Amino acid sequence: MSVSAGLPECRCPECGRSFPITGPVYRCQGCDYPLEIPVEGGSVAVSQFTHHGGRGVWRYRQMLPVRNDGSIVSLCEGGTPLLEAAHLGKELGLNHLYLKDETRNPTGTFKDRGTSVGVSFAVERKFAGVGCVSTGNMAISVAAYAARAGKKALVLVPATTPPGKLMPVLSYGAIVVVMDRPYSEIFKAGFELARELGYLWLHSDSPLRIEGQKTCAYELWEQLHGDVPDKVLVPTSSGGNISAIWKGWRELEATGLISRLPHMVVVQAEGCSPIVKAFQSGKNCVEAASEVLTEAHSISNPDPPSGSRALKLLRESDGVAEAVTDQEMLEAQSALARKEGVLAEMASAASVAVLAKLVRKGYISREDAVVCVVTGTGLRDMESVAKGTRQPLRFSSWTECRKELKRISGGTA
Amino acid sequence: MSVSAGLPECRCPECGRSFPITGPVYRCQGCDYPLEIPVEGGSVAVSQFTHHGGRGVWRYRQMLPVRNDGSIVSLCEGGTPLLEAAHLGKELGLNHLYLKDETRNPTGTFKDRGTSVGVSFAVERKFAGVGCVSTGNMAISVAAYAARAGKKALVLVPATTPPGKLMPVLSYGAIVVVMDRPYSEIFKAGFELARELGYLWLHSDSPLRIEGQKTCAYELWEQLHGDVPDKVLVPTSSGGNISAIWKGWRELEATGLISRLPHMVVVQAEGCSPIVKAFQSGKNCVEAASEVLTEAHSISNPDPPSGSRALKLLRESDGVAEAVTDQEMLEAQSALARKEGVLAEMASAASVAVLAKLVRKGYISREDAVVCVVTGTGLRDMESVAKGTRQPLRFSSWTECRKELKRISGGTA
Repeated sequence: MSVSAGLPECRCPECGRSFPITGPVYRCQGCDYPLEIPVEGGSVAVSQFTHHGGRGVWRYRQMLPVRNDGSIVSLCEGGTPLLEAAHLGKELGLNHLYLKDETRNPTGTFKDRGTSVGVSFAVERKFAGVGCVSTGNMAISVAAYAARAGKKALVLVPATTPPGKLMPVLSYGAIVVVMDRPYSEIFKAGFELARELGYLWLHSDSPLRIEGQKTCAYELWEQLHGDVPDKVLVPTSSGGNISAIWKGWRELEATGLISRLPHMVVVQAEGCSPIVKAFQSGKNCVEAASEVLTEAHSISNPDPPSGSRALKLLRESDGVAEAVTDQEMLEAQSALARKEGVLAEMASAASVAVLAKLVRKGYISREDAVVCVVTGTGLRDMESVAKGTRQPLRFSSWTECRKELKRISGGTA
Repeated sequence: MSVSAGLPECRCPECGRSFPITGPVYRCQGCDYPLEIPVEGGSVAVSQFTHHGGRGVWRYRQMLPVRNDGSIVSLCEGGTPLLEAAHLGKELGLNHLYLKDETRNPTGTFKDRGTSVGVSFAVERKFAGVGCVSTGNMAISVAAYAARAGKKALVLVPATTPPGKLMPVLSYGAIVVVMDRPYSEIFKAGFELARELGYLWLHSDSPLRIEGQKTCAYELWEQLHGDVPDKVLVPTSSGGNISAIWKGWRELEATGLISRLPHMVVVQAEGCSPIVKAFQSGKNCVEAASEVLTEAHSISNPDPPSGSRALKLLRESDGVAEAVTDQEMLEAQSALARKEGVLAEMASAASVAVLAKLVRKGYISREDAVVCVVTGTGLRDMESVAKGTRQPLRFSSWTECRKELKRISGGTA
């Protein structure tokens, strides 16, 4: 089994229709389900699976839809640390709690895995450029990789976007278009514009993005020395990333490298939790949220394009979906920094914020191997960080300073 | 040869006096030179050198002054990418230009290498806490690793520090003391306070920091498949980091793993370039700059504590020192993002900013293997980034948007 051996084809996981990946097809034209490159079976040796060596996404290039090494556009994405969270684990009574630290990607988020595969594909198939509709992490990632490839990047954003958010995107030289139209109209128009310009559109659940992001599961499997975690918790917006990680596990199973699968957990913000609501009321498809009442911007998609796919994988993996409050996320963000030394975006701390609730409900138990995916960096989210920090101490005399420090700092003097 | 085999000792590279590293001794009490753990000879096999496996700083733990694996405090520092800078190289007529991307460290800078070793040492030797005097990257790094270790961190800053700069430090739960006294007084008082409180002080040229940061050279050697680059360019402030990288090369030579050394290049900001000035006027010691006239804050130490050491290594390595203007750094920062996809701090782009001048002077030639160390992330330096970016395009009609995009985006339609 090898994705890159033949010309890849996309298939609708719902109705089975196939479409060539080279064309501007992103969703099934029959049932509007997001397309995927199919999981195929066949026994594979570890050495074949990790054929390329090195670390990160391209270690698994045998499983990725890019044919020539010369097409690869990389900033050394993936290969992110799996950190044991001993302090947080102890507090929660969990003996095997891990953080998959996706903040360590080139532009600070998991998006880079998918973008690297997408932009490499665009180079190989000679697309004129790449682009997306995004005001946040995805736009930054696409802009960075397009720069690295020497390709044009087009980023469409609504006029409501705060100008400061665009700075990192602009810094990489992307063409940023601020459009005074509603988001849903811009989202649709993006695909059309891409077709007209000969650009490859790398939206949140593009089949190419799924291919790149599935490598997160491969890495977890290697980092746990061939073991499978019991629970994998993923902050979820469009549903694309958890679908990708799930695909990775299914491929490991299909190739015979693992014999059981983890339980997947969708975590959303209470103020915008359409997948959680659908899951908890036993539905098979997601109803769009009517409003967004959360500051966790990276997981605030009210109409998640991979919502149904996420519900399906929750059923397949015997998983759950839970929501957390903004306050719980802020507290988890602060705890991650103060207790484990990891500075995450507020939205990315959702996977940690939900732990206490799942332990209380008995869904997670003491000996479970639990992986919280920490999806993105807190460095662009200092406003949230500020909410969880104390003030500094101020002195003008060393005597007073000494006195206070000896009192609070547990010194020996 | 192995640093960790015995109780490490520090030696003054200038006068040869020895001091136990466990004590609160940081500089030679005879000649005030910064102390180092000595480079020792003896042939070593690659397998012994990279004994610990894995990647990053602790891959080389055989060479680091920490005895027990259980003492190691790690966020997976080091192991940073060596990126080929093909676009920039082509423009400059350089066929082998590389970026050592230190922005990929846990808190975004090379400081994490040294901090990891320092905090691990503090854990092993049971110091009550760790600390430093810093308003920037070093403070953030120390705060993060102390959090990870469950140790107290003390950060002293002058009252002139903009409050926003302290936010990331505070986020990790460090004790931040804003002291209304001159910087030089605070710098001195830090060592004294550390002694009184039983804290380990991790200043910019601490022997422990040098040990961690020397691994940058080890990695370059491995990433170049055992080759030695011709030139290694380092943005320089205190002189600590370039001293560390140079120590790494000397150790590779002393162990018999390499037979030649690279030429080292100190790069400073024109508005604060005491090492460059001393070098260019042939002096053996550095005179403090009377004022700081640069926005490149991370390389603006007017009185570099490792200045003499930097001058010495320039002589030993047949290297050079050059200054760049703020404008040149801003342009290099922008070029790094737009052409290579790497978002660096303005000060960290100094190593790239200096290239054109060194090519012009004939110091760097077409076939040289040139490594620019990119010391820290641009994510905390958006003010500088903003200076190099264009404005977004704004439309309210799709027709106008299409027309303009077709004009500028090189589309096929």
